[in-house]
Amino acid sequence: MTDSSNKEVEEKRAARPSSLDISEDEFHAISESVAEIVEKYFARVAELPVFPDTSAEEISEKFPEKLSEDGEPIEKLIEDCRRVIEKSRHNGHPRFWGYVASPSTPIGAYADLIASALNQNVTSWRSAPAATMIEQQVMRWLGSLIGYDENAHGLMTSGGSLANLNALYVAHRVKSSGEVSHKGLWNRSAPMTVYASDQVHFSIPKAADVLGLGRENVRIVSSDERFKLDMRNLREQVERDEREGFIPFCVVANAGTVNTGAVDPLEEIGSFAQERDLWFHVDGAYGALGALAHEKRALFHGIARADSVSLDPHKWLYAPVDCGCLLFRDAARVQGAWTQHAADYIKVYEERDAESFAFWDYGIELSRRFRALKIWLMLRYYGSRKVSGAITDDCCMAQYFAERVEASEDFELLAPVELSICCFRYVPVEFAREFQAANDEERASLNEKLDELNAHIMHTVQRGGLAYLSNATLRARFALRACITNFRTTRADIDSTLEIIREAAREIRKER
Amino acid sequence: MTDSSNKEVEEKRAARPSSLDISEDEFHAISESVAEIVEKYFARVAELPVFPDTSAEEISEKFPEKLSEDGEPIEKLIEDCRRVIEKSRHNGHPRFWGYVASPSTPIGAYADLIASALNQNVTSWRSAPAATMIEQQVMRWLGSLIGYDENAHGLMTSGGSLANLNALYVAHRVKSSGEVSHKGLWNRSAPMTVYASDQVHFSIPKAADVLGLGRENVRIVSSDERFKLDMRNLREQVERDEREGFIPFCVVANAGTVNTGAVDPLEEIGSFAQERDLWFHVDGAYGALGALAHEKRALFHGIARADSVSLDPHKWLYAPVDCGCLLFRDAARVQGAWTQHAADYIKVYEERDAESFAFWDYGIELSRRFRALKIWLMLRYYGSRKVSGAITDDCCMAQYFAERVEASEDFELLAPVELSICCFRYVPVEFAREFQAANDEERASLNEKLDELNAHIMHTVQRGGLAYLSNATLRARFALRACITNFRTTRADIDSTLEIIREAAREIRKER
Repeated sequence: MTDSSNKEVEEKRAARPSSLDISEDEFHAISESVAEIVEKYFARVAELPVFPDTSAEEISEKFPEKLSEDGEPIEKLIEDCRRVIEKSRHNGHPRFWGYVASPSTPIGAYADLIASALNQNVTSWRSAPAATMIEQQVMRWLGSLIGYDENAHGLMTSGGSLANLNALYVAHRVKSSGEVSHKGLWNRSAPMTVYASDQVHFSIPKAADVLGLGRENVRIVSSDERFKLDMRNLREQVERDEREGFIPFCVVANAGTVNTGAVDPLEEIGSFAQERDLWFHVDGAYGALGALAHEKRALFHGIARADSVSLDPHKWLYAPVDCGCLLFRDAARVQGAWTQHAADYIKVYEERDAESFAFWDYGIELSRRFRALKIWLMLRYYGSRKVSGAITDDCCMAQYFAERVEASEDFELLAPVELSICCFRYVPVEFAREFQAANDEERASLNEKLDELNAHIMHTVQRGGLAYLSNATLRARFALRACITNFRTTRADIDSTLEIIREAAREIRKER
Repeated sequence: MTDSSNKEVEEKRAARPSSLDISEDEFHAISESVAEIVEKYFARVAELPVFPDTSAEEISEKFPEKLSEDGEPIEKLIEDCRRVIEKSRHNGHPRFWGYVASPSTPIGAYADLIASALNQNVTSWRSAPAATMIEQQVMRWLGSLIGYDENAHGLMTSGGSLANLNALYVAHRVKSSGEVSHKGLWNRSAPMTVYASDQVHFSIPKAADVLGLGRENVRIVSSDERFKLDMRNLREQVERDEREGFIPFCVVANAGTVNTGAVDPLEEIGSFAQERDLWFHVDGAYGALGALAHEKRALFHGIARADSVSLDPHKWLYAPVDCGCLLFRDAARVQGAWTQHAADYIKVYEERDAESFAFWDYGIELSRRFRALKIWLMLRYYGSRKVSGAITDDCCMAQYFAERVEASEDFELLAPVELSICCFRYVPVEFAREFQAANDEERASLNEKLDELNAHIMHTVQRGGLAYLSNATLRARFALRACITNFRTTRADIDSTLEIIREAAREIRKER
């Protein structure tokens, strides 16, 4: 194309009346007003109620029900975005410790703006050359954190559920005959079985359900008093299943559990998996990045023996959702599980290996957002030392939480703190006295009352907007649970939260 | 908590040395430099090469291999982002028509910045009150576009592959006994079967593989000369399978196909599915939003009878990746497929129905990005009329493409244009003459040569950076394929692309 014909094209382009391109002024109106909202949000998140004082009904009424035929002015939309923020739960608040959610950083959020403007669809090198390379690079960095070498490889997923599903799929296909993909699981008389502790994340049975393996074929291995998988019980169950004609193919270890942060004995599980020729998957969606804390590294000894590891940078690397990840120790072993089936319309016509690379050879998703950019920029902006420091400090905060709980007359610690989770409950002082004199039946009844009281406390605290805890069920008891993956949390926040809980308890008991 | 203790907390907070919070100046440095990159990108994307002149090797060398312990200055990172942009394929370029990818809009990209700053994890109302409401609202808007009523419901997914997987899972569970989730597919002698045309997207057999149903249990129904599913062949195959003891449970219709944009006879398939009690899924990942073009609406007649429809706003609603969506006609019927299994740690303790709502009752993902925000803002910013106009014009552009092809001596149209895809090939004038005189064998040989030439042309054009086409295999022939979901494309771009192809063909033939 000559310069002059190119010019002609440019001129004609201005004529497409349906183009969604906008003027420079309109662009500035968007970019400036959004930047202002975002800046204010980062500056003020600590002052907002953690949870809004609202109801589903009230929120619905705030926003237009019908889509209008004509456009709306940006000022109106920005005003509505302010309302959205007002009616949100703020995971970036220093006293937010529910589930596993972390604050995002400015660099992470702005990385997502670049990703969305550039709008790469990271399916393959051909479709997104630089983005593919950067995702591969980030996978190498994350892999090296857990001790994987250059044979490892991985891909980003929308989160831990998808990473675990993907891992179980690959585990099953590698451990069974190639025809399963074609023929399905019908007519196979011996079910193949997976092993995981009673603390396993529910995405593992869910994955077994989705894959057609069946939830009951995830065998639940008991855990010890520290909520770690019991090796003896694992061995017993595998041996019994083998005797009974089942085909064990995979063991899933937690690093750490979503309830208490317990890390299973990875080294021992690795040896056992090797001995029995089982696929060894580590679900480190929440906890594997705890390996960045120097003091915690020993807990993860053996993780590099795993065939696959899931870990979520949107959980403990402070990346904005979504940002999950699945790593494989030996990429070559994995590729065949998915390959061979790609369609003609996406067939890759490149000659060089690196340029034929496609993520669909490793996972379920075809379209994939440029998720790696935010990790790449964030890790480089802060440097690994500062990020490790934040993770280490989260662990210290949870430890401090446990110390305060144990030093109090009216709180009881319900699990050891292994990473950054503290599980405890509120026990009114007179209950503690009654406990001492109680027989088994009375204890059971007291425990039930405490379950109810603590569930009520959790709800009251959540809705009060000053702090946010979630819960765990530990040995059938209701625990308040603080999961600290939050670089804004300080000791003072923890102190005041214990007061907030006491205040909630007082209110609840007054009402009765 | 009193005001004074709150103040005390604030003061202590400043003391957490590991916090990743940054100063106002540092924030501005990020926000201003990113805004500048993004603005320039939107302004200049039409002038960039569609595909970079590069290699995997060259890209690797451009970026640091090791993660540094200390942070890097923002200027350096921004410089690297410029390099990333330089080494990207530009789906927003007016002559980009590969696969199914669309440009993003400024409002869509900035919506993603807000989503990532706010960092909602849209698992449930409790975790993201406003975001949940907005996703439900957007689902209603998209549902109403295809004629669904208020009983419908849906959820956003990372893309079409996940939406189709989710749809097939639900279809299977609704059509089989509840114990499948627990027991798996083992020991069931009669495989359950799915039906789809030979134009089906490869995510459907892939989903059958993942679900343990087996790829061969997706029965491939022949398509007619317009690449639409042949109803007679569908009926024959279902009847034969029933006779042979298989259990048909689902039919998947395309709207439209990824190869040519053909829309299957939805009304007839809907009637057949009802008659046979089959789940009726429509894969509209690429094409269902074509229903927004008034002239195309008739093609989609019957789509509202579907039990489920996948459609991707990141394909034809110009939303940045990722943004897929799965809609169900009757939400109540679906919920049971996933429910009952949620773990205690995410158990919802709300009393009001709307506040107990959780997306994990409808899909595979647990963590979910606030994907709906970009659609909500984008649809409101432009208004439905302008967006429909852009979609209508994309269809006109494909029609124009076909007209130009048919008016040329050296191009051949290989499929009717139904939505916004044009499939064609380059046929040198002397080949056309040879064809006329050729017998069957000679024709086959000529066709093979043309396949090879057009594959070569595609690669040359892609790497040339002036336009980007991909390919389709149609009745075993290699087709160049332009999928226009691009609001920047004009007639002039199409004219010049035919010249670019001719030029590539000349070069290739000269080299031989």
